[in-house]
Amino acid sequence: MSGFSDLSPLFDPRSVVLVGASERAASVGGRTLSNILDHSEFRGALHLVNVTRSEIRGRACHRRVADLSEVPELAVIAVPAAGVMEALRDCAALGVKYVIILSSGFGETGEAGRLVEAEMQALARASGMRLYGPNCPGVTNINKRLGFTFSPAFSHDLRPGPIGLATQGGGLGRNLLQSMERGTGFALWCSTGNEVDLQVADFIHYMAGAPDVRVIGTILEGIKDGPRFLAAARAAAEAGKPIVALKVGRSAYGTRAAASHTASLTGSAEVNSAAFRQLGIIEVDDIDELVDVASLLARGRPRGGERIAIFGSSGGACALAADMVGQAGLVLADLAPETTAALAEKLPPYAALGNPVDTTTVTLTNPGVIEETLAAVANDPAVSLVMMPMPLDYGSVSQTVAERMVAAQTRSPIPLVPVWMSERTGAAYRCFAEAGMVPMRSLRNAAKSFRCFIDHGAWQPGILPRGLGAGLPEAPTRTLSEAEGKAMLRAAGLSVPQGRLATSTEATAAAATELGFPVVLKIASAEILHKSDMGGVALNLRDAAAVRDAFAAVTRAAAQHHPAARIDGVLVERMAPSGGVELLLSVSRDPVLGHVMTCGLGGIHVELLRDLSRRLLPVDAAEAQRMLRELRGFPLLQGMRGAAPCDLDALCQSMAALSALVEAQPERIEEIEINPIRSGADGAQVLDAVVTLRG
Amino acid sequence: MSGFSDLSPLFDPRSVVLVGASERAASVGGRTLSNILDHSEFRGALHLVNVTRSEIRGRACHRRVADLSEVPELAVIAVPAAGVMEALRDCAALGVKYVIILSSGFGETGEAGRLVEAEMQALARASGMRLYGPNCPGVTNINKRLGFTFSPAFSHDLRPGPIGLATQGGGLGRNLLQSMERGTGFALWCSTGNEVDLQVADFIHYMAGAPDVRVIGTILEGIKDGPRFLAAARAAAEAGKPIVALKVGRSAYGTRAAASHTASLTGSAEVNSAAFRQLGIIEVDDIDELVDVASLLARGRPRGGERIAIFGSSGGACALAADMVGQAGLVLADLAPETTAALAEKLPPYAALGNPVDTTTVTLTNPGVIEETLAAVANDPAVSLVMMPMPLDYGSVSQTVAERMVAAQTRSPIPLVPVWMSERTGAAYRCFAEAGMVPMRSLRNAAKSFRCFIDHGAWQPGILPRGLGAGLPEAPTRTLSEAEGKAMLRAAGLSVPQGRLATSTEATAAAATELGFPVVLKIASAEILHKSDMGGVALNLRDAAAVRDAFAAVTRAAAQHHPAARIDGVLVERMAPSGGVELLLSVSRDPVLGHVMTCGLGGIHVELLRDLSRRLLPVDAAEAQRMLRELRGFPLLQGMRGAAPCDLDALCQSMAALSALVEAQPERIEEIEINPIRSGADGAQVLDAVVTLRG
Repeated sequence: MSGFSDLSPLFDPRSVVLVGASERAASVGGRTLSNILDHSEFRGALHLVNVTRSEIRGRACHRRVADLSEVPELAVIAVPAAGVMEALRDCAALGVKYVIILSSGFGETGEAGRLVEAEMQALARASGMRLYGPNCPGVTNINKRLGFTFSPAFSHDLRPGPIGLATQGGGLGRNLLQSMERGTGFALWCSTGNEVDLQVADFIHYMAGAPDVRVIGTILEGIKDGPRFLAAARAAAEAGKPIVALKVGRSAYGTRAAASHTASLTGSAEVNSAAFRQLGIIEVDDIDELVDVASLLARGRPRGGERIAIFGSSGGACALAADMVGQAGLVLADLAPETTAALAEKLPPYAALGNPVDTTTVTLTNPGVIEETLAAVANDPAVSLVMMPMPLDYGSVSQTVAERMVAAQTRSPIPLVPVWMSERTGAAYRCFAEAGMVPMRSLRNAAKSFRCFIDHGAWQPGILPRGLGAGLPEAPTRTLSEAEGKAMLRAAGLSVPQGRLATSTEATAAAATELGFPVVLKIASAEILHKSDMGGVALNLRDAAAVRDAFAAVTRAAAQHHPAARIDGVLVERMAPSGGVELLLSVSRDPVLGHVMTCGLGGIHVELLRDLSRRLLPVDAAEAQRMLRELRGFPLLQGMRGAAPCDLDALCQSMAALSALVEAQPERIEEIEINPIRSGADGAQVLDAVVTLRG
Repeated sequence: MSGFSDLSPLFDPRSVVLVGASERAASVGGRTLSNILDHSEFRGALHLVNVTRSEIRGRACHRRVADLSEVPELAVIAVPAAGVMEALRDCAALGVKYVIILSSGFGETGEAGRLVEAEMQALARASGMRLYGPNCPGVTNINKRLGFTFSPAFSHDLRPGPIGLATQGGGLGRNLLQSMERGTGFALWCSTGNEVDLQVADFIHYMAGAPDVRVIGTILEGIKDGPRFLAAARAAAEAGKPIVALKVGRSAYGTRAAASHTASLTGSAEVNSAAFRQLGIIEVDDIDELVDVASLLARGRPRGGERIAIFGSSGGACALAADMVGQAGLVLADLAPETTAALAEKLPPYAALGNPVDTTTVTLTNPGVIEETLAAVANDPAVSLVMMPMPLDYGSVSQTVAERMVAAQTRSPIPLVPVWMSERTGAAYRCFAEAGMVPMRSLRNAAKSFRCFIDHGAWQPGILPRGLGAGLPEAPTRTLSEAEGKAMLRAAGLSVPQGRLATSTEATAAAATELGFPVVLKIASAEILHKSDMGGVALNLRDAAAVRDAFAAVTRAAAQHHPAARIDGVLVERMAPSGGVELLLSVSRDPVLGHVMTCGLGGIHVELLRDLSRRLLPVDAAEAQRMLRELRGFPLLQGMRGAAPCDLDALCQSMAALSALVEAQPERIEEIEINPIRSGADGAQVLDAVVTLRG
């Protein structure tokens, strides 16, 4: 995957032209000019364009971009919608390579606007000019203190840091910036607006290479170009920069609302989540969690398996914190005897010295003990994160406590994480925020973010997906007969019971005798999908007489229920051994992200419990094994309740072979559903399969 | 259940003696005196006791309680631990009926303290005096502005309201009061300390009868007296006052930490949760959710089935809000055509007029439209709750928006709920808080609290539990043989296959012939529990010869694996028909809350998926049906995948009969485990059962 431009001129241009510069504070052009002149530290050349003014704020002003004597690196367009196309054409003619279109009034207002956007796209393609917007808040580069944005809030949210943000939705993006209030620091923010050209993926790719970004946060409503998004996420993974993502559209209401807001496909939430997991993207459930997790990653890098210490002065809050840690499936550290001894020396006899460490309120009356006791806990080799529940704001008393904790953090190599549980956020809270300790706002949120943090540390990238079969045009499809489909799977290396197609009673009996009893008979027709429901399948036939009777029965049933169907005959197969576990195994095509493998145990596991595991292709045997282990029903494959364990290797090889089959011709295959594949101690066999091809 | 005292003198006494009154601001007695004199509106008689002073702050002071000339209604004890017993004895001798013991240094410090607590209990029992504490923060009666508490925070948290709080854990309780910052109003708060006499249950019972309390909030670490708690919760349910509860101890870490903090049993989390559901107690997952749900209940009463409208000015935030509503399983209202027409009149053409209503940022530039458009939505007959996502603090712009929304609330009969998503809480946030609109702090929390609110509206009380079999002393137990156990169940009205006990080969064959083939043989011994695992069961025997062989086999297996076991013979039973669904059905005794029925589908549903449903006894057929419907596997009982539906009535009758059996002798029965009970189209049959009796 290539096609990513270097976007650094958008974020740190040497020269800029502001088209639609204005002196009026309330206008888009006026606010943008003020952000550049009054609130940014922009040292490059700034050209102003205004159709009616020759001078603004003492600076010369051109009537059109065409009048400029040099080619600025970046154009920022702030004129009303009606003037945007002319400005763009001027920019293209002059040779400007990067344009931010702040103006709104395009695709978001209706069909006429969408037509103008198509013109913009054509111009961008023809000229090679890269467009960001329209209908976007522009660029906020906090680390360099540069704002090419009309936002009146620009000057309020300027706490620098290592987190880069690319969002869909300006309100939600700005909400993330307002988390600076609790000490989060951000490198930059962009929100992609109508995405006529540059998409969230392009900005993620830029941040993967930007030296001042260490953690990437994103809010997604719809992924416009799946393979492009996957490529950007791969670049971030390769650069070792975690992505924390909130994806809107995990319920029908959310999908509908996001689609109507962005006019783009939101894709399947399950497939999105699977892709995120494969790429090491941390998916969060709400916007405050995005801040929790990103800020934790900005403070330290997880290795997986981190153990937690709880340190507090309220027994109840410590107990609740321990409960949250347990409910999140995390592990409390066992403190070393030296740690406990150090605590015992400083704390009263009725303090709890285990983990949680409940100092009791002695820390409120004698805050001097905090630094040493907290340092003892933080320096315990078993401890990798300290959770500090703070249920109350006690004014100056709490402030002193916070100051001691901040002092302890300066000497600790691991993150000490305050959990500010009170609705009252006074001086102590601000003290933590100022120090960049980003207080969590609830114990549950804290435990959940620890879980995301630690899980990310344990993430091992497998083969990263590229979006095989994504974005194909609509095409007619055709379904193979069971015999054809199985032949294709057999050729691909999957184990399929031996079988023959036969068209007469005697040929069927002869085929059965040749294969060896017991056998199965199935009506063979690409036009009959639910064969057993209508009597088209006969199982466990033990001799030729039974086969003859069954031939008559299944052909009669087919004639009765599907009189118009083309019948190829009957498929005779060796009966699979009894026992083992039946699974559903399929590959289907997500329109946005491409081919996805799904597996799950058969019967109620799929139908009732939706116990399914998914991966974008390719899937190799190792990834297949991880898929199976994710299933709640996995112990059944290991031989629960006295059954023999299944041959997992054989099952995983089948899954890998299915993946390879689709990888070889992603544009030709629409869907393959194997239901069931039987997994037993003796291997894995395809018992039924429906293959659907495109074109 | 009786034994509840009227606790109103604790909360609104006519006369009080403060034992340990002091002038020193830093002392417990000094702070308590200041709270009464400086921050309370106490109009009753106040007596002061101090062993060394004859006058404090211009008021006469007695040396001992015994010196008082009248009997105060309430004594508040603030002397150091060493002086507490003397003060209590004086109070008892004088005839004081209610005592708050603020002093700490008792059970929480070790064994010596626990011995003093036992003395307190004996004195309370002998005198009839009711004790609240020790080691408690006393009484905060906000609606009457009375503080019998040493807390220096008393005067900061005085926003009155309809929510009463009884907590275990002072830090967590005070945390709830600090939520006044977002506009929550509270009637009163008490936190029960070491519970030598009065428990959380007593305070819940008081609040059930207190006219100024409409919603009860509680934080529980351990329930000391299960039946007392159940009785208090029943009183609240009967008074129509919802209880919102946070129970610490839902993980092993939490249970251990809570037990070490309170030195009491925390009980089983699953049983607690089942009891809560039966009593209509709303269980929340974290302390901020308790505020969310209680404040919503303080603003309106749910009927169940409420539908939600989303109203906001950020498309992204509206879409995320819709997603949260969908993920919480809630329903968005369909707006009436008149509503949409009213919106269209005021909003720009590109606004979204469906639900979510995305006004676009026109509300920021022209806040005049808010009141009418919001009123149109709030007055739509389909709408019962309005969710207003506010992603940003835009300073005075947001303040104006908030003021218009507050104005709309004053004219709306339904709750308009702002969701303040930003970390920045400025004037707009305070405006909502001042108006008592209690902003939610995240979309996820808002949706979750709506869910709790609406579910509570749909709650229908069944038979409320009383704690049958709770709190029994330790006793030896004995297990009945299968035949004895089954006989007991048959006598109780459950269907059990016909069976005979036989001790010889020929008697067994004769019994089988008499019962009719096919039969089952099981080794009969109360000392062998896992019969099938060791070869003690033979199924599906079709003739006398098979029975003779099986007799030899099972007795040989028993002799081999359990050579010392007393063998009663073999149990011969008619083989149950094939088909149907196997379930686990049991009653066991929770030490705190008493007998609990558990049911779940057999096999992997119980072992792998922990798909179980629980109720405290009694369970009638209607409640049994609700239990079954809670199971994720319930569709299997309805005849999934072509199977015949089970006879649910027969199964529910069996469950009710099991409940009645235990209700009749709760002290005698320790546990009954039926595993499996077979449910089919032809009824429900007990296939195996282990009955354990006490004593």
